[in-house]
Amino acid sequence: MQLGLVGLGKMGDNMRARVKDAGHEVVGYDPRPEVSDVPDLAALVDALEAPRVVWLMVPHGEITRNSVTELAGLLSPGDVVIDGGNSRFSDDQPHADLLAENGIGYLDCGVSGGVWGRDNGYALMVGGSKDDVAKVMPIFDALRPEGPRENGFVHVGPVGAGHYAKMVHNGIEYGLMHAYAEGYELLDAEPLIEDVTGTLRAWTQGTVVRSWLLDLLVRALEEDPGLAEISDYTTDSGEGRWTVEEAIRHSVPANVISAALFARFASRQETSPALKAVSALRNQFGGHAMRDSSGASVGETSKH
Amino acid sequence: MQLGLVGLGKMGDNMRARVKDAGHEVVGYDPRPEVSDVPDLAALVDALEAPRVVWLMVPHGEITRNSVTELAGLLSPGDVVIDGGNSRFSDDQPHADLLAENGIGYLDCGVSGGVWGRDNGYALMVGGSKDDVAKVMPIFDALRPEGPRENGFVHVGPVGAGHYAKMVHNGIEYGLMHAYAEGYELLDAEPLIEDVTGTLRAWTQGTVVRSWLLDLLVRALEEDPGLAEISDYTTDSGEGRWTVEEAIRHSVPANVISAALFARFASRQETSPALKAVSALRNQFGGHAMRDSSGASVGETSKH
Amino acid sequence: MQLGLVGLGKMGDNMRARVKDAGHEVVGYDPRPEVSDVPDLAALVDALEAPRVVWLMVPHGEITRNSVTELAGLLSPGDVVIDGGNSRFSDDQPHADLLAENGIGYLDCGVSGGVWGRDNGYALMVGGSKDDVAKVMPIFDALRPEGPRENGFVHVGPVGAGHYAKMVHNGIEYGLMHAYAEGYELLDAEPLIEDVTGTLRAWTQGTVVRSWLLDLLVRALEEDPGLAEISDYTTDSGEGRWTVEEAIRHSVPANVISAALFARFASRQETSPALKAVSALRNQFGGHAMRDSSGASVGETSKH
Amino acid sequence: MQLGLVGLGKMGDNMRARVKDAGHEVVGYDPRPEVSDVPDLAALVDALEAPRVVWLMVPHGEITRNSVTELAGLLSPGDVVIDGGNSRFSDDQPHADLLAENGIGYLDCGVSGGVWGRDNGYALMVGGSKDDVAKVMPIFDALRPEGPRENGFVHVGPVGAGHYAKMVHNGIEYGLMHAYAEGYELLDAEPLIEDVTGTLRAWTQGTVVRSWLLDLLVRALEEDPGLAEISDYTTDSGEGRWTVEEAIRHSVPANVISAALFARFASRQETSPALKAVSALRNQFGGHAMRDSSGASVGETSKH
Repeated sequence: MQLGLVGLGKMGDNMRARVKDAGHEVVGYDPRPEVSDVPDLAALVDALEAPRVVWLMVPHGEITRNSVTELAGLLSPGDVVIDGGNSRFSDDQPHADLLAENGIGYLDCGVSGGVWGRDNGYALMVGGSKDDVAKVMPIFDALRPEGPRENGFVHVGPVGAGHYAKMVHNGIEYGLMHAYAEGYELLDAEPLIEDVTGTLRAWTQGTVVRSWLLDLLVRALEEDPGLAEISDYTTDSGEGRWTVEEAIRHSVPANVISAALFARFASRQETSPALKAVSALRNQFGGHAMRDSSGASVGETSKH
Repeated sequence: MQLGLVGLGKMGDNMRARVKDAGHEVVGYDPRPEVSDVPDLAALVDALEAPRVVWLMVPHGEITRNSVTELAGLLSPGDVVIDGGNSRFSDDQPHADLLAENGIGYLDCGVSGGVWGRDNGYALMVGGSKDDVAKVMPIFDALRPEGPRENGFVHVGPVGAGHYAKMVHNGIEYGLMHAYAEGYELLDAEPLIEDVTGTLRAWTQGTVVRSWLLDLLVRALEEDPGLAEISDYTTDSGEGRWTVEEAIRHSVPANVISAALFARFASRQETSPALKAVSALRNQFGGHAMRDSSGASVGETSKH
Repeated sequence: MQLGLVGLGKMGDNMRARVKDAGHEVVGYDPRPEVSDVPDLAALVDALEAPRVVWLMVPHGEITRNSVTELAGLLSPGDVVIDGGNSRFSDDQPHADLLAENGIGYLDCGVSGGVWGRDNGYALMVGGSKDDVAKVMPIFDALRPEGPRENGFVHVGPVGAGHYAKMVHNGIEYGLMHAYAEGYELLDAEPLIEDVTGTLRAWTQGTVVRSWLLDLLVRALEEDPGLAEISDYTTDSGEGRWTVEEAIRHSVPANVISAALFARFASRQETSPALKAVSALRNQFGGHAMRDSSGASVGETSKH
Repeated sequence: MQLGLVGLGKMGDNMRARVKDAGHEVVGYDPRPEVSDVPDLAALVDALEAPRVVWLMVPHGEITRNSVTELAGLLSPGDVVIDGGNSRFSDDQPHADLLAENGIGYLDCGVSGGVWGRDNGYALMVGGSKDDVAKVMPIFDALRPEGPRENGFVHVGPVGAGHYAKMVHNGIEYGLMHAYAEGYELLDAEPLIEDVTGTLRAWTQGTVVRSWLLDLLVRALEEDPGLAEISDYTTDSGEGRWTVEEAIRHSVPANVISAALFARFASRQETSPALKAVSALRNQFGGHAMRDSSGASVGETSKH
């Protein structure tokens, strides 16, 4: 079948290749002419026969919203738009409503797999109607990992459910990564441990903690022993924040995921105003040793 | 080769079977005569030819200590004792010293794999001298998963290093499990998600969060949809606590692992004294609605 | 001067009394006729001479919004509305814009002091223009604690700043209460401590931790030794959640405040889905003892 | 009465002054001859009439242990030693046992008040026997704040109880300070807040969060606006760590106090190995932007 694919960044480009490998035709659009098959969205729509399937793989927020709005004016009743980007799930119903005014279907699809999905397949979590899902199923089957459909594809529920599931997936990912990270630091801190990388490598078979993330951590350490080449400055891309926001909305205790998120925030601070306040307080009541902003020791130590 | 194996519980029994399958002879001792090959430790030692290898698979603390002490009096110079149980790593050097007085070697070996290790193999993290490790290597090779030795076996460092590594492994395990658990609760709380189990199952291929623990969670949900049959009362078995204690000793921030540990503590409280105090405070300053210990509402709500 | 006061619940009623004590005239409106001075908002507005000052002390959200909307149609240019309730600060600018269309001023005022404010005075954090603040200052001076104005009153910034400050105040309050609560539980758990209440009482003078909240905790324990009469079920009223949401927006690590919030969430759960998942996982890999939902022990314990 | 006081640092020196002001005689010993009244502990013991009271105000651990051991050989039956330093409560019973062999009594006394105690008095939490407490009561009365004895003095329980109470006091202190600190950072981060110091100052009267620590934070900000002059590097002195260790021993969830402790750990790290691991993982699966150790951006950003 035909697929219109909007957004040919690292993810979109890999997905285009995987869909093509499965024997489908892909018409891709990207604002960079050198990678785009068509000059604009109108040309993309023209290049597809109805009923059309157009998959968005663009940054969430304004760019996704603009693309949906433009497509609402270009597409025809019976066509389907899929938002495969990392949109907040609360954006989905407004997008679906906008398209529904013109009889256009909408699916939200969480896509996991990273740069490895090109070869391994992408796990897909889809929200929307059964009819719309059925229209796109050949594409989903092309993208998902081989093997039983249910081990890499799920129709989670109505519009929004796919991105909600992807959000939670990424929230879990924050927690998993930080659990390994704390463990790594504890191995690194203990002189008895002569071979940190070897210890993690030995965990990749047979243990309770074996996982793909652990394989990647071993790979990273093999490439960069002691992680000497990288900074601890760690960004975050939305889903972790949204996960904690949803935990608040649902009154779900989320200590682990929020701790992982806050650690990333802290990693990006040159100095912590909070810890400055703690340090200032300690000096006020106890004359505890403080460092001034240059790092030199000021004040005197005492009990309190 | 011959192996003396002390402790034939679920783990020890499975390990005996795996070692035998590899063609070794195992003489097992357990206080339960119906499963034991010999009546006591002295008989176990007599049944082995020097240099002997005796593997302990008994509860940590007093029982392990007593076994080591008794073996110190029974074994001969050149023999080796391996503690494969979940001892605190700080117990290892004292045990090694006790045995060394009689020229007996000592290895500590963290063993991971649970009930699945019988078939999949056990990941092994070993602390001790190279000479002692070499003596026991055929047994390690029998127990570890098939494939490259380094993907399931590691000689981590000197005495204590194996149990330290296993402790960190289990600390990580606490964090990983809780990350999945928070995600599960967030899926469960959201009405958009019509198929929680299916969502988790779809993550088992292709995603960043795929892991053996995730496979097990899917399996648990397939066996008991909604986890209706089990309580949230969750015990802990030592390594999680030790991991946080070591984080404190090494000044390592361990927010994720400690949050997972504290959540287990909380799961075992019928009522929380801390939250009683919070509730009492709220009533003091604001006349906030409180429940009395029977659950009935008392006091009045107001702003503050 | 004259004050129109909308909302005569516990807080509003106390505030009316304090303002009257300072020699001002208060016209109060409340939907409950038995406590209201006037039958409706129109009558309240009629009863006041321009320029009018109308203070809202009603639940945040819909009721506040409706009151602002109605007053926008009733008041005259030069009048001022103050929202003294616990509104989310992001509601303030829309309210101010609505009123500004008719030339009416708007102030948001965080009010702290609880049921004790009647006698001790209320701390006030105000957002809005200097001109509007000046118009209301006699009322602020009546409400705030005696002594220097700056120790109980602050003009924090433009519209929204007052409620933002109050939100942070309450977020801090969550953390403070939980810090005392954890300490209380630690005293309660230790057999060496023969007199928990006496220990806390001894901290009320001279210590680093002395505070009004500590005084209240001692008072609660004196009234209800062991806190035997109250449940640990603890509600939350919005500001704690908003504080964590703002921490996320500003990328501020807020581990303490979020931990206090999440503990309240957990206190309201009869069972924790997350801990069920952890317990189920433990059983899957290790045959760990679990309790079924009736509390009986199921499965067997083993190492993993 | 007479008091022997060992350790004339900032705390000891202030306490000597306060005890003298109450009309008692103090013989002080310190290894620094210029501040010491006597050349050594033997001379201190000689200078006191039996039954003697000797108060230790020295660093916990080895120095306290050595002082107790030496005094055990110098003092006479019926004398009493008080450890007023910040010893771990688990050190107390061994010290008491050592002294009891020679008929010497022992009290452990947690002392709070910092540099302000000289004028305000010190809150005292005492562990030991009633008889020993009675012998020292005139000194306790001199040191504690004026007013009712129970608002600044408590006989908490047997040996060890005083230091346990002080440990919990300091654990609470960690949590309180961090709650204010997170709130301070949230005020500091929000452009609406034009006067952070003024906001905190306004909270010092009438609010739920008013406390001595808040007064000190205002004082610190008045002395150093924006806390520009101090570093966020924050040390810890033992009690916070011990509090979390005791929380683990008692299975008490201590998320707030541990978060405050871990934040101090993090404040002392130049780079976080854990966040390096997170950053490395992100790059492995998604080609996320990372910074290398020089801070320059490497890799490319993409979805995953």
